[in-house]
Amino acid sequence: MKVTVKSLVLALATSVVASAASAATVRDEPIVPIEPAVVDNPAKVALGKKLFFEPRLSMSGIISCNTCHNLSRGGTDNLKTSIGHQWRAGPVNAPTVLNSSLAIAQFWDGRAANLKEQAGGPIQAGIEMAMPHTLALDVLQSIPGYVEEFTAVFGPGDIDMDKVTSAIAAFEETLVTPNSRFDQWLKGDDKALSVDELAGYTLFKDSGCVTCHNGEAAGGTSYQRMGVVKPYASTSPVEGRYAVTGNDADRFNFKVPTLRNVEMTYPYFHDGQARTLEEAVDIMGQLQLGRHYSEVEIGQIVAFLKTLTGEQPQIMVPILPPSSNATPRPDPFN
Amino acid sequence: MKVTVKSLVLALATSVVASAASAATVRDEPIVPIEPAVVDNPAKVALGKKLFFEPRLSMSGIISCNTCHNLSRGGTDNLKTSIGHQWRAGPVNAPTVLNSSLAIAQFWDGRAANLKEQAGGPIQAGIEMAMPHTLALDVLQSIPGYVEEFTAVFGPGDIDMDKVTSAIAAFEETLVTPNSRFDQWLKGDDKALSVDELAGYTLFKDSGCVTCHNGEAAGGTSYQRMGVVKPYASTSPVEGRYAVTGNDADRFNFKVPTLRNVEMTYPYFHDGQARTLEEAVDIMGQLQLGRHYSEVEIGQIVAFLKTLTGEQPQIMVPILPPSSNATPRPDPFN
Repeated sequence: MKVTVKSLVLALATSVVASAASAATVRDEPIVPIEPAVVDNPAKVALGKKLFFEPRLSMSGIISCNTCHNLSRGGTDNLKTSIGHQWRAGPVNAPTVLNSSLAIAQFWDGRAANLKEQAGGPIQAGIEMAMPHTLALDVLQSIPGYVEEFTAVFGPGDIDMDKVTSAIAAFEETLVTPNSRFDQWLKGDDKALSVDELAGYTLFKDSGCVTCHNGEAAGGTSYQRMGVVKPYASTSPVEGRYAVTGNDADRFNFKVPTLRNVEMTYPYFHDGQARTLEEAVDIMGQLQLGRHYSEVEIGQIVAFLKTLTGEQPQIMVPILPPSSNATPRPDPFN
Repeated sequence: MKVTVKSLVLALATSVVASAASAATVRDEPIVPIEPAVVDNPAKVALGKKLFFEPRLSMSGIISCNTCHNLSRGGTDNLKTSIGHQWRAGPVNAPTVLNSSLAIAQFWDGRAANLKEQAGGPIQAGIEMAMPHTLALDVLQSIPGYVEEFTAVFGPGDIDMDKVTSAIAAFEETLVTPNSRFDQWLKGDDKALSVDELAGYTLFKDSGCVTCHNGEAAGGTSYQRMGVVKPYASTSPVEGRYAVTGNDADRFNFKVPTLRNVEMTYPYFHDGQARTLEEAVDIMGQLQLGRHYSEVEIGQIVAFLKTLTGEQPQIMVPILPPSSNATPRPDPFN
C-alpha cells in the first residue's frame, strides 16, 4: 500500500513537472497553438455531423453544408464564390469551417455571433440552400431516424431550428486542426521549421502581418478594413461590416480570415480574387502595409504559411437515415 | 515442436469443419449472400477513394462521383434524375454504386462492360460533370500529391484515364454491403426475419419476382423489358438497351436494378417515377407479372425488401491534395 501511494505521489509530481515544462516551452508569440477539441457530448456531435452532411436541408436535395465547406478540401469549396440553389452565384468566397469556432464572430461581416447563429443562415438563403426553415423541420420530423436521434440528444419534443443549429455547431466545434508544423515549433521543436520557413515567419511578424493575423487561428480576432494604405479594387459589391452596423466607418471592414490551413483554402479574400498564396501575400503587403515584398520575401512568407496546415479532422462518412413515405421530396427543377 | 504441429493440425481440422458447416447452412435460394470485399491493393483503393470524392474532376469544381452516388445515402442522390453541370437535368435516375461490381454491366442500358469502363463516362458527359478528359488529366497532373500517389500505385509515367478509371473502379469494388438481415437468414439464422418479412419473401419468390431479382445483388444479372404485361407510361424519352444494340427487340429493356439497400435508394425505376417502395412493388406486380398485390401483400413484400439493407461501407472522408499554382481553376459561371 505504501509503495502504491508513493508511486502515485511520484506520478503526480512528474506530471506537474511535465506540464510546467511543457507550458514553459510554448514560445511567447502572437500566434498561439491550437489545442485538440474536447468532445463532451458525442451523441450531439454525431447528430450534428449528419446534419452537416445532410442534402435534405436544401430545397434541391443536393446541397449540404459540406458542399461549400468541404472537409476533404480544408473546409472550403475552392471556388471564387460558391454555387448555390439552381446554380446561383454567391456574393462572397466561402470561408473555411475549420477552426471557425475560434473566431470572434461568423460570416465575413460578422453578422452571426457564433456558429449556432450562423448555421441557420445558409439553409434558407435563396442563393445557397434555399430551404425555408419550416420545410427543413417538416423534412427532419418525417424521418424516424432523426426523430429518434433528436430525442436521444435533446429529450422529447418537436425538432426545431434551435436544436438543429445547436447540433451542427457542436459538430463544427470539433473541426480544429492542431499539431501543424508551426505549432510544433511554437511548442519548442526547433527542427519543425526550415530556415526559409522561419525567415518567412520573422518577416511576417516584423512587417506587421501579426497585427491582424494573431491568436489561435492566426486571424478571426478582429475586423479590419480591406485596403488600408491603398483601396482594394473588388469585383464584388459587398461592403463588409457596414451591412451589419450601418456605420460609414465600417465600410469594407471584414473579419480577418484565419490563416490556418491556408494552403488548402485558395482562392483568397472575401471575393476570392487572389488566385494564389503568392498573389495574396503581395496584395496584402501593398494594400495593408504599404510594402512591396520582393519575390524572395514572398516565397519565404508563403513557405511559412504552409507550415500552418494542421491535422485535418478524421471524419467517418455518416450514414443518413432514409426518408419515410411522408417525407416531402425535393423538386429541384421547378 | 511436436506440440506445435499437433496444434496446427487441430486448428486446420477445426477450420475445415467450421467452413463446411457454414457452407452447409447457406439456404438454397435464388438470392445469395453478399461476401465482404477483399482488398488486395489498398494504395490503389485509397487513391480511387480520393478520385471518387474529387470535385476537380468536374468543370465546375463542385461535382464529384459522390455527389450523385452519395455514400451517405445508399450510393444514390435520392432524386428522380440527377442535377448536373449548370443545374442540367439528367435523363435517368442515378443507380446506386453500392454492390455495382456484382452486376453484369454498368448504366441502366449496360453500355459499359464494367466499373472501369463506366467511370470515364459521367466525368465528360455535358449534363453531368462536363469535364473533357484532357482537362481532367491536366488538373490531376498539376497536383503534386496526385502525381506522387499515381506513381506509387502505377509506377512512373503520366496520369492517364486508364489509371484514373482503374483506381476509381478498385475503390468502387470495395463498396459492397454484406450481413443484411436477409443474408443472416440465408446463412441459417431463423430469427433474423420476422413472420411478416418471411411471408413477404415467400410471396416475392412464389409470384415470380426472383426471375429477375436474383443472385448476390438481387438484380443486375439480366436485361428485362420495363412493361412485360402492360406498357409502362414513362415521362423519360430513354429507350434502354435499344440505344446500345439498335435491335428493336431491346427497346425499353433495362438492366434489372439491384434490390440491395432498396430502402435507401428511392425513388425507383430508370425514370425515378415511383416515389415509394409500396408504389414500386404495386407497379412491378401489374406491369411485369400481371398481378394486383393486395395492400397486405405489398406491405409484406416491402417488409422483406427492407431486410436487404446491409452494412454500409465505413468510409473515412479523404483529404484531397491541394491544387498547385499551375492547376487550371474551375470557372463554373462562364
